[in-house]
Amino acid sequence: MDPRHWTLYLAPGTCAQATHIALCEAQAPVQLRRVDFASGQQRSPAFLAVNPLGRVPALVTERGPLVETPALLAFVAQSFPEARLAPLDDAFAWARLQAFHSYLASTVHVAHAHKFRGARWSDDPASWEPMKAKVGPNMQEAFTLIGRDWWQGPWVFGSQYTVADPYLYTIGEWLEGDGVDTAAFPWLLEHRERMRARPAVQQAAAQLQALVEVAA
Amino acid sequence: MDPRHWTLYLAPGTCAQATHIALCEAQAPVQLRRVDFASGQQRSPAFLAVNPLGRVPALVTERGPLVETPALLAFVAQSFPEARLAPLDDAFAWARLQAFHSYLASTVHVAHAHKFRGARWSDDPASWEPMKAKVGPNMQEAFTLIGRDWWQGPWVFGSQYTVADPYLYTIGEWLEGDGVDTAAFPWLLEHRERMRARPAVQQAAAQLQALVEVAA
Repeated sequence: MDPRHWTLYLAPGTCAQATHIALCEAQAPVQLRRVDFASGQQRSPAFLAVNPLGRVPALVTERGPLVETPALLAFVAQSFPEARLAPLDDAFAWARLQAFHSYLASTVHVAHAHKFRGARWSDDPASWEPMKAKVGPNMQEAFTLIGRDWWQGPWVFGSQYTVADPYLYTIGEWLEGDGVDTAAFPWLLEHRERMRARPAVQQAAAQLQALVEVAA
Repeated sequence: MDPRHWTLYLAPGTCAQATHIALCEAQAPVQLRRVDFASGQQRSPAFLAVNPLGRVPALVTERGPLVETPALLAFVAQSFPEARLAPLDDAFAWARLQAFHSYLASTVHVAHAHKFRGARWSDDPASWEPMKAKVGPNMQEAFTLIGRDWWQGPWVFGSQYTVADPYLYTIGEWLEGDGVDTAAFPWLLEHRERMRARPAVQQAAAQLQALVEVAA
C-alpha cells in the first residue's frame, strides 16, 4: 500500500478534516479531491461509486475505498506506526480510543446533524425546527460529558497526541455555529489553540484552502 | 487481563447482544449483569458510574469500563486472537470491518432509535410521530444498501465469520418490529438461521434467558 496512490475525498466544514489532519501528521503524500456539496457533487454517479452514502470522508486506496471517520482514523494510525498516532500495542487503550471515536460519530456528530439534516429522520418539515432547537443543548451536554469523562489533557488521552485529537478538534469547531457558548469549555479552547499551532493542522488548512480557491 | 474478572452489562433486545455473542464465540468466561431498563436501572448512580451515558453494552475490566459496540467488538477480537473473529493482521480488511461497524452504529442503529428515542433530538412531542413513521423506510433503505454494498455471504465478509456477524444479526432482528418486510432480504433471513445454529448464539440466548428468569 503506497499512499501516493491514495485519494482522500473531502469538503470544507465536514468531519473529513479529521482524517485529512491525521494523514498530514503521518506525512502521507495522498491526493486530495474536493467534493462540491453546493453543486450536489456528492450525489454524482462518480462519487456514489466511491461512497454509496454520498458522504465524505472517503479514502480510495489500491485495494478499494474506505469510509467512516472512526475506521479511517484507525487505518491511518495503523498504516503509519512510526507517526505514533494511537496506542497500537495496547488493546485496552486502543478500545478506549475506538469508544471515544464511536461516541463522537454516533452520538455527537448525529446530534449536530439534526440541524440541517432533519429530513433524514422525518418527512414532516414542521418537525425539523424543534430538532434544530435541540442541537445546541445536545452539543453542550455532549461536550460537558467529554470534558468530565474523557478529556485528560493536554491531548484527549493525556500526554500522547492521538488521532482522537483531530477528531475532537473538528467536531469542536462546530460548537459556536450550533449556538454553544464555548467559554464554558476552556480546556477545549486551549486544545483548539494547541491544534492550530501544529504544522500538520496548518498544512491541512492550507491544502483545503488551495482546493477551494482553484474551484472558485 | 483475565476475562473471569470482567463483567458485561446487558439488557434484552439491545445491541449488547452483539458483544455478548462475540464473548461466547471467544469462550470468554465473563460475568453477566442485566440492567433492568423497565425499572430505570440504567439511570441509577451505580450504573452511571460504569457508563455515564446510561447505555448498554458496558464491559468492566480490571483496567476500567469499556463502552460502545464497535469498540467492544474490536476489543474482543483483539483479546482472543485464537478465536479468529476479525482480520487482525490486515489493516485494510480491519478498516473495512470497522467501517461497517461504524455504519451500523451511527446510521442504522440511530435510524432505529428514532422510534422510541425522539426526545433525544426534539423536545416537541408532535415531532416524535413523524420520526417514528420514517424508521421503517430508513431501515429498509439501510439493509438494501448493506445487501448491495457490504454483504458477501455466507458471512458478512465472506467465508470467514467475524464480529460483524453478531452485530448485523442483532440489528437485523429489529427489522420486523420496525415494520420492515424482511422477505425482501432473503440473504439476511438465511444469515439469521445460520447464526441461530451456532452454539455461541444459543449459549448467549440461554444465558440471557436465565438472567431474565432470575429477575422475574
